[in-house]
Amino acid sequence: MMLAPATALSLGLRVLSEAPDASAALVAAQTPPGLHTDLTALQRLAADCDVVTFDHEHVPPEHLQALEAGGATIRPSAAALVHAQDKLVMRERLAAIGVPCPRWAAVHDAGELAAFGDEVGWPLVVKTPRGGYDGKGVLVADSLDDAADWLGRLDAGEALLAEEKVAFRRELAVLVARSPMGQAAAWPVVETVQEDGICTEVIAPAPGLSPAMAAAATEAALRIAGELDVTGVLAVELFELHPSPGDHARSPRDGGPAGANVHDHEGEGAGFVVNELAMRPHNSGHWTIDGSVTSQFEQHLRAVLDLPLGDTRPRARWTVMANVLGGDYPDLYTTYQHVLAHDPSLKVHLYGKSVRPGRKIGHVTVCGDDLADLRERARHAADYIQGVVTE
Amino acid sequence: MMLAPATALSLGLRVLSEAPDASAALVAAQTPPGLHTDLTALQRLAADCDVVTFDHEHVPPEHLQALEAGGATIRPSAAALVHAQDKLVMRERLAAIGVPCPRWAAVHDAGELAAFGDEVGWPLVVKTPRGGYDGKGVLVADSLDDAADWLGRLDAGEALLAEEKVAFRRELAVLVARSPMGQAAAWPVVETVQEDGICTEVIAPAPGLSPAMAAAATEAALRIAGELDVTGVLAVELFELHPSPGDHARSPRDGGPAGANVHDHEGEGAGFVVNELAMRPHNSGHWTIDGSVTSQFEQHLRAVLDLPLGDTRPRARWTVMANVLGGDYPDLYTTYQHVLAHDPSLKVHLYGKSVRPGRKIGHVTVCGDDLADLRERARHAADYIQGVVTE
Repeated sequence: MMLAPATALSLGLRVLSEAPDASAALVAAQTPPGLHTDLTALQRLAADCDVVTFDHEHVPPEHLQALEAGGATIRPSAAALVHAQDKLVMRERLAAIGVPCPRWAAVHDAGELAAFGDEVGWPLVVKTPRGGYDGKGVLVADSLDDAADWLGRLDAGEALLAEEKVAFRRELAVLVARSPMGQAAAWPVVETVQEDGICTEVIAPAPGLSPAMAAAATEAALRIAGELDVTGVLAVELFELHPSPGDHARSPRDGGPAGANVHDHEGEGAGFVVNELAMRPHNSGHWTIDGSVTSQFEQHLRAVLDLPLGDTRPRARWTVMANVLGGDYPDLYTTYQHVLAHDPSLKVHLYGKSVRPGRKIGHVTVCGDDLADLRERARHAADYIQGVVTE
Repeated sequence: MMLAPATALSLGLRVLSEAPDASAALVAAQTPPGLHTDLTALQRLAADCDVVTFDHEHVPPEHLQALEAGGATIRPSAAALVHAQDKLVMRERLAAIGVPCPRWAAVHDAGELAAFGDEVGWPLVVKTPRGGYDGKGVLVADSLDDAADWLGRLDAGEALLAEEKVAFRRELAVLVARSPMGQAAAWPVVETVQEDGICTEVIAPAPGLSPAMAAAATEAALRIAGELDVTGVLAVELFELHPSPGDHARSPRDGGPAGANVHDHEGEGAGFVVNELAMRPHNSGHWTIDGSVTSQFEQHLRAVLDLPLGDTRPRARWTVMANVLGGDYPDLYTTYQHVLAHDPSLKVHLYGKSVRPGRKIGHVTVCGDDLADLRERARHAADYIQGVVTE
């Protein structure tokens, strides 16, 4: 999805491509072959590029450091990106700069996990620090037993990230971009609707969000971008907390001193905590392709190349994006024809990926004034394309 | 510019590409080499495609007929496209279906041209029926002498197209799309501003256009699309006539019987005459990329593939597109950086073409509510990128 803005701005885009039938290789002119885990392939790519950037965070940090040592310009840098690659590193850093987080601990063994659970209460959320996405690498543990497998697989010195299970009102995301010269720009805060750990829908802007909360969330994202020296797009996923008294952020547990390895809330009273970070165009920002003056893909390119950033204003009162997940129908062309006929204003985006159940294989976007109508149309179209509904 | 919507809709796009450094070959994955005048190359392309379409009208008609005879699906068909390839064929057909045209004649020699000039008055507009674009192949003749060279080069049976020089108020364009199943959709009528025969600016919708004129122009374009069995995008360029009494459409000359080879106005009183046709995404429709729910490039693909057509509504009250013409600066990257900084809402589109003076090498688009402001911003940005102004 970076190809269209790269083409418009006459920027030469080379995409390291794992296979001849990978999405990028199907459409882009320059897709040198190679795996993102192959240092030699990465070095060959970097030698041909002024700037190297990412559409995922799975390139090994040590490879990025090696590229930088070899003189390549990596944006975001290896030092910044590690905060999106390692959830423990992220939590430590956000705590240090006072960004609101769930209470959390690095747990090396069952004893530490039990102590943390006693402190903040079960169930807990347990995460592998690296490699998770779309709910993978995340476990909700009702008791120590539920995490026994993961704990048993830890090597000496390795830790899991344990977090309190936050009772949140809904999930939000803030998308910002920052350039090496320090220019930054933020899109409106959005609501992300999740099912089974997978984002199914994004509403821009987040309905009913208080201006104070929107400003605080945006400020936090811009501060993270600046403090971590992020270049390119940064997505910050948030839990919006319940506003009523007696909610977890004000619970009696918070009153006493925290256990030695328990990191308490920072920035209490903000009304939100940070869940995850991503340093690249992100699913929560796909609405910007059709819904904002500048899409996250164009902005990411502008940011990593230190070009002036574009206008992030929305182009309509509401934009709704629904993900198309792999379903029963392998032939999307047949189903999306009906959707195009049914809704001429709908924008369909397919990724050229093979259909596997639950895999994000595309999205649809609608813009307009009537939010309920837009949500219904986006949901119906996404369900129809993936074969969930047939009328 | 068709690549982005083809990618979003997961449509495999193969572009016959004349050179490895041609615009399409720089960005698209599948750009088989070949000239559009090489029948073998065309046949190889067609063998790999479900549908063959165009981004210019210079493929020889006899080649298109040969492809069709060989079983290829050409959209628009050779029979339709010839009306955009041959201005005499176009005039004959539009006259036959009663679409308003300037008075015109096919002239085979000086005698016929002189007779036509005596009938409609000098100066005349003389055109080569085939191969012209951007003012090339068009001559304003004040007298017979001015056309002597062109007349002298005619082979036996060949003719030039002579037209009265219409005193028009301004130039308009109507863009429509039509699919094989007969679905059709029209964008709002736009104003096109020309300098030296080259379009420099497009304003959507045309400011101050009467609803009646807009409806009549749109109806004419849809009728042309239907009568000529056009598939894909059709651009109809119009002259809007002066509304005052005594204008050419009501001139005394029109009162008497026309000379034998003079085709009189059809549809008099419509307030416009048709200048040119194009059957492909057209410069007058570049505003739709950023300014309409469905761009002309997406719509063209949907139309030629017989997919349901998309919503043609504008996304803002006004959209202004200004062409970037080749100027003194070969390095556009340096100049457009300043423009991006100066106007974060501006959308820049460069075509990856080498810079030659006067060549269309890109365009810029702005959308908003204040037309005067938008025109100033678009003009400044286009001038700055091409090096006409330096502040």
